[in-house]
Amino acid sequence: MHDFSFKVTAKDQKSQARTGVIHTPHGDIQTPAFVPVGTQATVKSLTPEDLQDLDVHLFFVNTYHMVMRPGIAVIKRFGGLHAFMHWDRPLITDSGGFQVFSLGAKRFARKNEDGQGEASLVRITDDGVTFNSHWDGKEHVFTAENSMQYQWDLGSDIHIAFDDCTPYPVTKKQAEKSMDRTHAWAKRSLDAHTALAKKYDLYQALYGSIQGSVFEDLRIASTKFITRLPFDGFAIGGVAVGESKKDMASVLSWVMPLLPDNKPRHLLGVGEIDDIFTLVDAGVDTFDCVQATRLARMGHLFIKNVKANFVFDITKKEYAEDTNPIDSNCQCYTCTHYSKGYLYHLFHVRELLAYRLATIHNIAFINNLVFSIRGAIAKGKYQQLKSQWMTV
Amino acid sequence: MHDFSFKVTAKDQKSQARTGVIHTPHGDIQTPAFVPVGTQATVKSLTPEDLQDLDVHLFFVNTYHMVMRPGIAVIKRFGGLHAFMHWDRPLITDSGGFQVFSLGAKRFARKNEDGQGEASLVRITDDGVTFNSHWDGKEHVFTAENSMQYQWDLGSDIHIAFDDCTPYPVTKKQAEKSMDRTHAWAKRSLDAHTALAKKYDLYQALYGSIQGSVFEDLRIASTKFITRLPFDGFAIGGVAVGESKKDMASVLSWVMPLLPDNKPRHLLGVGEIDDIFTLVDAGVDTFDCVQATRLARMGHLFIKNVKANFVFDITKKEYAEDTNPIDSNCQCYTCTHYSKGYLYHLFHVRELLAYRLATIHNIAFINNLVFSIRGAIAKGKYQQLKSQWMTV
Repeated sequence: MHDFSFKVTAKDQKSQARTGVIHTPHGDIQTPAFVPVGTQATVKSLTPEDLQDLDVHLFFVNTYHMVMRPGIAVIKRFGGLHAFMHWDRPLITDSGGFQVFSLGAKRFARKNEDGQGEASLVRITDDGVTFNSHWDGKEHVFTAENSMQYQWDLGSDIHIAFDDCTPYPVTKKQAEKSMDRTHAWAKRSLDAHTALAKKYDLYQALYGSIQGSVFEDLRIASTKFITRLPFDGFAIGGVAVGESKKDMASVLSWVMPLLPDNKPRHLLGVGEIDDIFTLVDAGVDTFDCVQATRLARMGHLFIKNVKANFVFDITKKEYAEDTNPIDSNCQCYTCTHYSKGYLYHLFHVRELLAYRLATIHNIAFINNLVFSIRGAIAKGKYQQLKSQWMTV
Repeated sequence: MHDFSFKVTAKDQKSQARTGVIHTPHGDIQTPAFVPVGTQATVKSLTPEDLQDLDVHLFFVNTYHMVMRPGIAVIKRFGGLHAFMHWDRPLITDSGGFQVFSLGAKRFARKNEDGQGEASLVRITDDGVTFNSHWDGKEHVFTAENSMQYQWDLGSDIHIAFDDCTPYPVTKKQAEKSMDRTHAWAKRSLDAHTALAKKYDLYQALYGSIQGSVFEDLRIASTKFITRLPFDGFAIGGVAVGESKKDMASVLSWVMPLLPDNKPRHLLGVGEIDDIFTLVDAGVDTFDCVQATRLARMGHLFIKNVKANFVFDITKKEYAEDTNPIDSNCQCYTCTHYSKGYLYHLFHVRELLAYRLATIHNIAFINNLVFSIRGAIAKGKYQQLKSQWMTV
């Protein structure tokens, strides 16, 4: 049963910004949408009910982490991620590729077929990626085929094709080789996904992944190649890698105009507050980012202040006796019940509640911004909202 | 305004077990009651709403920790602990004495006037206790008078008189000297409390603290001395110190029969599952203990199984694929929404949600037991309930 669709509901006149609705078997996702990350099958410190209270309709789980712990077979035994985590709204998973490459590269020098790099536990061939778990040393192989199987077993609503995540910095030759492999794996992902779809009743969508690093012609070639394949949507990868985020606007300017209007676009791993207008301008529909939740756990809380880069540090002594909430305009649970002084205290003495209250606020803040953006696009007032946010 | 009272509502025929209601300015407390500990102005990992969902009507905050961080002046600025923490039900605080002695003794060898022990940062005289903060080295003095002032500033509903917490093991001579000091400080606490009560509108209750270590004649002398003073209730101290807990039943058998029937009794720092029937038998009305919440954060979860000492370790591999809840009879949020397998996973990957879900279950479990005890006492079926629990 094909139970996935996307509809654009409004467009901005001066940019590519748009609102829409992604329909999935576990419900609808209004877009643009910020997608919190629940790496290890939990958005750190929050329950599913907390996420529902925050109007989160989609979150991101990393397939790589699920393979490592608890293992796909365990989650399959529980009937998939939704039942395992007690979450009944949509879920998106990635292919595992990004972590295989980035976590592998962090722990072990990466060695590719060019013979560059140190002796490594990450071995990449045209077939896939072989590496040893950093938990138990056990050998794992990720291929297009098993990545698709893993995501079906996890039961997420949106899957992402297995890709070769191009490192950064990179030579153009290396980037091209990596892109070609991503394209070969995209086809194999689609074939495997299509075969699996016949075995299951519930339809799960597959997004193609666009690579090409920071090279205009490669990004264009990748976008053209991937959009010719019958994916349900598209994910733009390789933007959050290393320093390449500086080039995000350029990459989006090359890729986005070539994407079909009628399919959803997900930007992988990007979503700091000051990125949001840029990506919405370019026509991105959904974006995941660990920044909101990671910063929260460090005590870096979001506020509407572009000059402060939208953030302040609650762990600074000056907040110890501050009886005001983080943001007196914010209606989140944290802001309506607690002072900055209490939050300062909880962080100062490292109490668990600190991380939860801070996470609630940061997700609420980013969601309120995104909801305002949706409303403004629908009312033709997106440009006003943007200038108001970027000058205060 | 005197706004504190206690009423016994039912009694068991074969023991001293009883039910009652403690009335305070922030509401009523049904007894017997388990009192969770929120050492640093938060019950670790939980919000006040979580505690309300768990039917918690009283929790314990440690004055010593409040003096250290954030400081009493800060909490006073917020209007007291209730407003600081966003908690509108009753609170109980201790005198600070226990931590001054026990935390001091842990970090620095304790030196008393006998000249025993190593050179120390904890100095005890008849006036009070002087020590240097283990946070910043700053000198602090605790006396009966400032302990009372601190507790009024914190605004808890039930205060405890400043006492000399007798260490264990201890000679009888040392125990007697410590007890005599406790008695002198009890009188000074009461005088200071009475003077402060005239300054405030809202009545706060003061419990006298009974010491005497594991010596029958000292415990009897202490009980007689303290009960002759016009305290609102009585706290039994010195039972949770070191190995002396083995003597809990003996201590309670000496002390409890001498306590007036019409005032509430609090047992300090005791409340493991297998202690509960013993202390209820003896006529204890309220008891605080960190064990339920501390064990939870270690993955030690409560179950109704006396042979297993009412606990199992969720971090053991055998629970990795267990699709059952912790306890299929438990109606808590954790048991009605999550499997042992998911909890195993959260503990295994050290996710923050683990601590919260485990804490919810352990408090729910102990509260369900205590609520059953109340019901059984009221219906004259306490002895049956007890034998049913102690044989399964």
